Amino acid sequence: MKLVDLAGRLGCELRGDGEIEVTGVASLEKAGPGDVAFLANPRYAAHLKTTRAAAVILAAGAEAGRPCLLTENPYLAFARAVALLRPPVRPLSGVHPSAQVHPTAVLGPDVHVGALAVVGAGVRVGARSVVHAHVVLYEGVEVGEDCVLHSGVQVREGCRLGNRVVVQNGSVVGGDGFGFARDGEGLYHKFPQVGIVVIEDDVEIGALTAIDRAALGETRIGRGTKLDNLVQIGHSVTIGEDTVLAGQVGIAGSTHVGSRVTLAGQVGVAGHLTIGDGAVATAQTGIPSSVDPGAVVSGYPAIENRAWLRSSAVFARLPELQKRLREIERKVESLLAKALA
Amino acid sequence: MKLVDLAGRLGCELRGDGEIEVTGVASLEKAGPGDVAFLANPRYAAHLKTTRAAAVILAAGAEAGRPCLLTENPYLAFARAVALLRPPVRPLSGVHPSAQVHPTAVLGPDVHVGALAVVGAGVRVGARSVVHAHVVLYEGVEVGEDCVLHSGVQVREGCRLGNRVVVQNGSVVGGDGFGFARDGEGLYHKFPQVGIVVIEDDVEIGALTAIDRAALGETRIGRGTKLDNLVQIGHSVTIGEDTVLAGQVGIAGSTHVGSRVTLAGQVGVAGHLTIGDGAVATAQTGIPSSVDPGAVVSGYPAIENRAWLRSSAVFARLPELQKRLREIERKVESLLAKALA
Amino acid sequence: MKLVDLAGRLGCELRGDGEIEVTGVASLEKAGPGDVAFLANPRYAAHLKTTRAAAVILAAGAEAGRPCLLTENPYLAFARAVALLRPPVRPLSGVHPSAQVHPTAVLGPDVHVGALAVVGAGVRVGARSVVHAHVVLYEGVEVGEDCVLHSGVQVREGCRLGNRVVVQNGSVVGGDGFGFARDGEGLYHKFPQVGIVVIEDDVEIGALTAIDRAALGETRIGRGTKLDNLVQIGHSVTIGEDTVLAGQVGIAGSTHVGSRVTLAGQVGVAGHLTIGDGAVATAQTGIPSSVDPGAVVSGYPAIENRAWLRSSAVFARLPELQKRLREIERKVESLLAKALA
Repeated sequence: MKLVDLAGRLGCELRGDGEIEVTGVASLEKAGPGDVAFLANPRYAAHLKTTRAAAVILAAGAEAGRPCLLTENPYLAFARAVALLRPPVRPLSGVHPSAQVHPTAVLGPDVHVGALAVVGAGVRVGARSVVHAHVVLYEGVEVGEDCVLHSGVQVREGCRLGNRVVVQNGSVVGGDGFGFARDGEGLYHKFPQVGIVVIEDDVEIGALTAIDRAALGETRIGRGTKLDNLVQIGHSVTIGEDTVLAGQVGIAGSTHVGSRVTLAGQVGVAGHLTIGDGAVATAQTGIPSSVDPGAVVSGYPAIENRAWLRSSAVFARLPELQKRLREIERKVESLLAKALA
Repeated sequence: MKLVDLAGRLGCELRGDGEIEVTGVASLEKAGPGDVAFLANPRYAAHLKTTRAAAVILAAGAEAGRPCLLTENPYLAFARAVALLRPPVRPLSGVHPSAQVHPTAVLGPDVHVGALAVVGAGVRVGARSVVHAHVVLYEGVEVGEDCVLHSGVQVREGCRLGNRVVVQNGSVVGGDGFGFARDGEGLYHKFPQVGIVVIEDDVEIGALTAIDRAALGETRIGRGTKLDNLVQIGHSVTIGEDTVLAGQVGIAGSTHVGSRVTLAGQVGVAGHLTIGDGAVATAQTGIPSSVDPGAVVSGYPAIENRAWLRSSAVFARLPELQKRLREIERKVESLLAKALA
Repeated sequence: MKLVDLAGRLGCELRGDGEIEVTGVASLEKAGPGDVAFLANPRYAAHLKTTRAAAVILAAGAEAGRPCLLTENPYLAFARAVALLRPPVRPLSGVHPSAQVHPTAVLGPDVHVGALAVVGAGVRVGARSVVHAHVVLYEGVEVGEDCVLHSGVQVREGCRLGNRVVVQNGSVVGGDGFGFARDGEGLYHKFPQVGIVVIEDDVEIGALTAIDRAALGETRIGRGTKLDNLVQIGHSVTIGEDTVLAGQVGIAGSTHVGSRVTLAGQVGVAGHLTIGDGAVATAQTGIPSSVDPGAVVSGYPAIENRAWLRSSAVFARLPELQKRLREIERKVESLLAKALA
């Protein structure tokens, strides 16, 4: 593709020779001739001088000493460039002869069902969705259009996925929630988990993530929300739209996480809480009580991020503070002794 | 079912019209006509006034302004009501033609083996157990009676499951423990993991949980213990009876966790420790040394819960304390200067 | 095997009767007649007196009151004894008739492909490697010689594994990295993840561990590195040689972890950092910035381990410190009042 054509497709401003041919994508550091690279994180700006990239996607106003595409959002423009220059290979439509598709399942046009997949009774899969090898869809599952379910994904009975939902390998949608009623002798009895999971449109779920079905009613992941790998979503949790949960986050049962929330890696949220829209929790935060919309919290128990940063700085000096306190006690005792003398 | 009959089945005291027909179960908030709901968590008491439930299961002594079933343990009674009104659909007995069952495997009466499951040489599966699609049982595995193994579960060679064991999707029982011997040059050599895992009766294991086989001997999960999703159990760990491990808990190798212990979400326990019977660790606690029976611990390194709560409250005020310390130092210096003057 | 022969195979010094026959391996506590046991962790030294083991592998210089094999590294010697006395049973060579092997896949001599495994187009598997039942290798995957991939492992398109790589059950190699570009309206757009994962020789990966493919280029796990269960490796992470990551560790994208690093259980590392060679992080440490080679760090935010231990000790006494500060403030006010009087 000519650089000028790529600029047009991406809606970027072209600087330099638009007639050069671009054929690949790479990081600034690894790019070779023919590659388009990008700079979004200033941490990597030093590579601009040494890159061998044919062209660079940059923030409007920046310079690179080589052909550039300028845009307000270089990361987004580069994501689109990757999609254009390295288009995904879609598996062929059709059902692999080794797949086990129940006769009552309904597959839309151009669906792919891979080798040894299991599609249960009454399942519905929408047009153009890809059900990779070794996916298991229990009875009554509904999958929308243009979804991609990677190998090893398990979707339990009656759960529903919207359109354009992507699930990476090995994730489990709709496993039983963790509900047990304790009797007077301390024995636990299973609370049957008869609810479902609803995944709305444009959600992406990482690998080996577990989203439990509700005890009653629904567990729901809102439109556009993205979950990373090894995330735990308890039963009856509801999550809003365009929220991001990083790797190994855990949300206990019946908590509501709002829209445009960001929970960084390994954050834990207790049950029966509300995390307000736009809230942010930094990595490893432990959240024992509800969080206001827009709040930024850290630590365990979670407090306001700036307060936590200040307290953490003092924490590292606690032995020194303790020593100073001892010293001052000594001096005051001496003063008191004199005052009494 | 008539409400009076449900009351009889559950052993609850009936208040109000027992002739009404109840057909479903729901939360107070979502219940419609015909549904039975319940109140166990006082957090949701406000819904009692607005619920449209036909009847409510409540603690003895409470009132709901509508037909009620009174009991000392509403959550347990409701769990039983769910099992009665929404009975689980059990897959039909028999072996799916696509399953790979080794000729030396022995299946008890009324066992179900789902599509594309693999049952290895010498495996034994007890009466009425359900082995869902895409389960893999390595050679020599023993599964008791009335078990349910969901799709994607892997049970490694020689491991043994008791009766009424439930394993949610994708969990791994008996993967190799993490044992490597370091040589003088810093290279790690695998310590062959030749032990097994034993899961006793009435254990439930969540989704995507890993229970490693022992290096030698056994890893053992005691009767009635419940493990949530994404839990990590190291090799040679032993867990007592009726213990509860919440999501993303990790227990390092050779630790013994007692009976009736509760470890909340994301708790980590180091190796070679003993966690006494009845101990409790709150969420995200990190446990570097053994815990006494009945202790309640928090924080990392774990300390007694009430002490940790008090210290955490002070932590949030550390910058203020530091400032006060500086102030007092200034004042004392000034007093000392005067005293010397 | 005669004990004298075992001594010779292990390169240990024999003390006592070398003619006794040893047939099994066990811990000191569980050993019976005929078993070889070992003592490496002094925590278990008391068992030396009561063990029924036929012989014990010990550190040079120690005594056991029974036949012994003496060596500088008892744990390593015992690991080798286990391999000799309990040799692993290797599945037979050949492809199970129910496996789905693409005609363009190339399998080396003596490869095993288990029941219902899927081997995609253009895959290459080296000599003597074992691909267990229910493994899925997407198109273009390369697996070296003498590898073992356990059931439920998923390896995504184009990823490459070296020789002698072991992957426990259910792990995912090459799932899409967590990359989304946010537009001006707060919507997330997928950044196509077109890189791969490269696993070098002698790496072992635990169960249910997720290693994401790079957005561009490679995610790489260096020779001899060992990853435990439920570990999360973000896209474009690179890890050096002979590094150990314990259970539930998470490494965010584009971070470089050096060689001979040890990260204990549940450690989290932020993205775009460098963890120097030989660094150690104790359990649950949260690492928000780069770590120097050889450093030992703890806490969140991670600080030098000894400083953290000291600060943690003071943390537990914070309420007392606060009280002492109040007391001293009171006394100083009283002194000041007198001074002014």
